[in-house]
Amino acid sequence: MRIAELSSRSGTSIPTIKYYLREGLLAAGTATGRNQADYPEQHVHRLRLIRALIDVGGLSIAAAKDVLAALDSAQLPDLELLGTTQHALGRAAGRDRGSAVWRAAREEVVALARDNGWRVGSDSPNLDQAADAVAAMRALDQADLLDCLPTYFAAAQQLAAAEVAAVLRRSDPAQMVEGVVAGTILGEALFGAVRRLAHEHTSITLLEGR
Amino acid sequence: MRIAELSSRSGTSIPTIKYYLREGLLAAGTATGRNQADYPEQHVHRLRLIRALIDVGGLSIAAAKDVLAALDSAQLPDLELLGTTQHALGRAAGRDRGSAVWRAAREEVVALARDNGWRVGSDSPNLDQAADAVAAMRALDQADLLDCLPTYFAAAQQLAAAEVAAVLRRSDPAQMVEGVVAGTILGEALFGAVRRLAHEHTSITLLEGR
Repeated sequence: MRIAELSSRSGTSIPTIKYYLREGLLAAGTATGRNQADYPEQHVHRLRLIRALIDVGGLSIAAAKDVLAALDSAQLPDLELLGTTQHALGRAAGRDRGSAVWRAAREEVVALARDNGWRVGSDSPNLDQAADAVAAMRALDQADLLDCLPTYFAAAQQLAAAEVAAVLRRSDPAQMVEGVVAGTILGEALFGAVRRLAHEHTSITLLEGR
Repeated sequence: MRIAELSSRSGTSIPTIKYYLREGLLAAGTATGRNQADYPEQHVHRLRLIRALIDVGGLSIAAAKDVLAALDSAQLPDLELLGTTQHALGRAAGRDRGSAVWRAAREEVVALARDNGWRVGSDSPNLDQAADAVAAMRALDQADLLDCLPTYFAAAQQLAAAEVAAVLRRSDPAQMVEGVVAGTILGEALFGAVRRLAHEHTSITLLEGR
């Protein structure tokens, strides 16, 4: 199809499509003339995925490009795809890594993972990111909020069990790898919004009861 | 204290402190000379908070400024502070809002909140953001992942109950308002990392069992 049809079917403007082509997020079409190209049907879906990662997932162009490259080269079972996808969600490293407070925070997270029987890589960037948040709470005298950590681990385990099971129920390998990406990135945005709704509800209810 | 001491005690470079001063995230000190100012003790804590919001929470300078302004003017009980803090975490609006798919997704989230007995404002931006993610999953043929939504609501309710209770246990009003900010923003970063750890564990365990 021509770029105009790709634009209308994907709901993405032509300048935005051209930007994604230039940035390498979307493969070039087949040239059909001096200034014309033909794009395959799959580009409609790919454009929806790119926009979901960027608009809903909050990914940068560079992070989205990394995730798409990992998706395109994924072979199941693929823990590398999970790693790349998770990495795209990570914040910049906290600036206090290496401090005594930070190292203690990381130990605390590692111990909780072990107590829960979780198997995670000892060099997992997720351990570092959890430690960033724990160390920040301690530095801000918010350590009592960390009483919630066991609840976090229990809730996360429930979510992961449901999410991974949903992806593994799929029979098409291509659908499974895309499920890893969507479940990780869109799932994080979705759960964040649901958690904030729960805070609204809980706060309104408790304040009225006072 | 002088800016050099503020820098070493907060672990923030002098140029970064000057940047925050210019951007209005940090109040100006008391001038003590042509090029010197004196900063109060509280600035050490405030700098830690600013850096936690930006580095760990992933907030923009503008979003952090909004949150700090709401924090400074908060009066308990204060649902407005919660709203401003939550707003700072929201992504840009999905571009498909208003489409039939998006409206159906929003209805689905509203119905789930109602079925769970949650009281949330009918114009809550969290409903819109949840709908962005649900609509994106449907557009990408990932609707089976939405089977996890009831699990999301149950897990979010557990988290919110623990988190709001921890904040309400505090006796100092200033500590309570800062707990809303830290619990919402650092808590989201922390839970995101813990959820990704749970995915690591669940994926490794299931793949080995195949």
